[in-house]
Amino acid sequence: MNIRKIILLLILASRSLLCVAQPNSLPNVVSPEVHIDNSVTFRFYAPKATTVTLNAQFEKSPLLMTKDQQGIWAVKTAPIKPDMYPYSFNVDGVSVADPNNTAIFPNEGFQNSVVEVTGSTPLVHSLQNVPHGTVSYRYYQSTELGTRPVVIYTPPGYENNPKVSYPVLYLLHGTTDIEETWTKVGRANIILDNLIAQGKAKPMIIVMPYGRAFPVISKSSGSLRNWDNLQEFKKDFFGNLMPFIEKNYRTINNKDNRAIAGFSGGGGTTLYFGFNNSDKFAYVCGFAPGMLKNEFDRNNEAAFKDPIQTNKNLKLFWIGVGKDDMLYGVNQEFMQVLDQKKIKYESLFTEGGHTWMNVKYYLSVVAPKLFK
Amino acid sequence: MNIRKIILLLILASRSLLCVAQPNSLPNVVSPEVHIDNSVTFRFYAPKATTVTLNAQFEKSPLLMTKDQQGIWAVKTAPIKPDMYPYSFNVDGVSVADPNNTAIFPNEGFQNSVVEVTGSTPLVHSLQNVPHGTVSYRYYQSTELGTRPVVIYTPPGYENNPKVSYPVLYLLHGTTDIEETWTKVGRANIILDNLIAQGKAKPMIIVMPYGRAFPVISKSSGSLRNWDNLQEFKKDFFGNLMPFIEKNYRTINNKDNRAIAGFSGGGGTTLYFGFNNSDKFAYVCGFAPGMLKNEFDRNNEAAFKDPIQTNKNLKLFWIGVGKDDMLYGVNQEFMQVLDQKKIKYESLFTEGGHTWMNVKYYLSVVAPKLFK
Repeated sequence: MNIRKIILLLILASRSLLCVAQPNSLPNVVSPEVHIDNSVTFRFYAPKATTVTLNAQFEKSPLLMTKDQQGIWAVKTAPIKPDMYPYSFNVDGVSVADPNNTAIFPNEGFQNSVVEVTGSTPLVHSLQNVPHGTVSYRYYQSTELGTRPVVIYTPPGYENNPKVSYPVLYLLHGTTDIEETWTKVGRANIILDNLIAQGKAKPMIIVMPYGRAFPVISKSSGSLRNWDNLQEFKKDFFGNLMPFIEKNYRTINNKDNRAIAGFSGGGGTTLYFGFNNSDKFAYVCGFAPGMLKNEFDRNNEAAFKDPIQTNKNLKLFWIGVGKDDMLYGVNQEFMQVLDQKKIKYESLFTEGGHTWMNVKYYLSVVAPKLFK
Repeated sequence: MNIRKIILLLILASRSLLCVAQPNSLPNVVSPEVHIDNSVTFRFYAPKATTVTLNAQFEKSPLLMTKDQQGIWAVKTAPIKPDMYPYSFNVDGVSVADPNNTAIFPNEGFQNSVVEVTGSTPLVHSLQNVPHGTVSYRYYQSTELGTRPVVIYTPPGYENNPKVSYPVLYLLHGTTDIEETWTKVGRANIILDNLIAQGKAKPMIIVMPYGRAFPVISKSSGSLRNWDNLQEFKKDFFGNLMPFIEKNYRTINNKDNRAIAGFSGGGGTTLYFGFNNSDKFAYVCGFAPGMLKNEFDRNNEAAFKDPIQTNKNLKLFWIGVGKDDMLYGVNQEFMQVLDQKKIKYESLFTEGGHTWMNVKYYLSVVAPKLFK
């Protein structure tokens, strides 16, 4: 990503077979530039701005940037732990993505870029020369909600083994994320490619839907009712999405070969959908799941009604959360309730907060536990 | 897109099962807001900016935006012809995408957003309730260039008809575009879904690679040599990409079932790859292809050597370009050379310039002519 921009502009400046669609009149800006020691220089061209800061998820507070004579603001960080980090620039109070980085965080609530610090050793989410699965963008038809997008990972070999069926992981994104976020920021496909190549995870299909009915006013009343939104998505999930997947993919259709996992708001949805339907999902995993204490009883009614049956159905009930996560407290309270009800679960408390760095790690921890 | 943002912020403000990953402290900004009469309001929050303009491809010159008391800049356009238009904001000389719009133009040279004005009648690129093909993100291995991305469209029914083989269209993007641009901005998948549903186009596979070897300094000399870059991509295209496709997809492997098309720089590459290899591609289509007059002879050597054989091989040689396109002149000069050499071609001169609006239209004109 770093060197590309400079070279492209050089290419455009030279006479060339490859004519440019839209010449870029900005000065050459390379950003982000990852250095050999894992420090990174971020740059942003804004000659008239008064203050530009970098908001990056490897830093707890914004980093001040300084402007050169050309009007390019820059900051060089200390060496960073290899990972992928969302970041944005704050330009006089306005948050913008990095215009020189094509790695965009797909999200409806904010616009961030993503920097990858690869380091010298491949990480579990690093693109490596191993067999790769396929990431498919599909549409399915929802009776009530119209044409809906879903992203589906099929493991390496899926296309060439037409007699083999596979277990399925339904993987839900965070509140303002979209159906692409799990692959583009969560690298779910690459993580599974690597774990499968290492023999650590079973080949599986991963289904990543757009995880809301509609970010829209309730059709019935005109007022905002989030609970209704969730109910509509539940209808769509069980009534349209799952049948679409099971009709169009070679899935093994029983609870022991179905998992559901999700992050943040999608983690809350995961528990609501999965934990309460343990006859359909034997594996239920919350990655920093979003919950409210006063909704525990309502949202877990089915699971709490018969804890013995719930325990019998579930092969894995897993919750991971960061110690700095704003949801750490509510997740601890939820686990206390699970303890009281004698519902079995595994928990993982990590360093860090409510980030996709943690979420990628949780997926890499959980995937080897599925379907075994 | 419009109403989503408001609602999401309301959802976040309410106590909710769906906890948010990153609360957004900006004021509620809805942008773009498409009105019923096809006018559009664009908004951008920048309380400290001095001048903000809208650069949109439906306008020849930038539109001035005005700031309200909250610091939100806005402009409402006149009614716009229904289509999809790239746009950006220029904030005190800095070009940025619309932070409130998730529809991003994938490109390495600039960062634009895309607004869709749907109008009352579905267009050829409008998502409709018809059978949809699959868009797959794959990686293939290149001996020299490492792991390479490619996006592949398979038509509706591909997965469920394992005995049917299909013709293939190789579709190349513009100079600074990437492998996603043809689907996300060009809507190649939706256009084909619609044309196939209407019986106007044959079901086909579309292969959309990352259309450069590397935006990088020549390995051999350290100096920038674009010609070398093209030679490397040619090696990769014929030596790795095509074999990968023909091994992993049910393709019909002869020239009459292979087409190649491309836009701008990718149009130049299309002519260089396809027109000179008419034994491999019977259909060659340039969408505002990028060319230089002093390279005509070098780049078309094989095709010009034996015009009779070239005419015999090609079932369609098609060039389309807009009358306001900066490449209109060189394309006319190229056609004069084709006339002199008695090489047959079809041409289409449209209104408008070097835009994806035109390119989508060219694809919709050409697709029905392929493989018939």
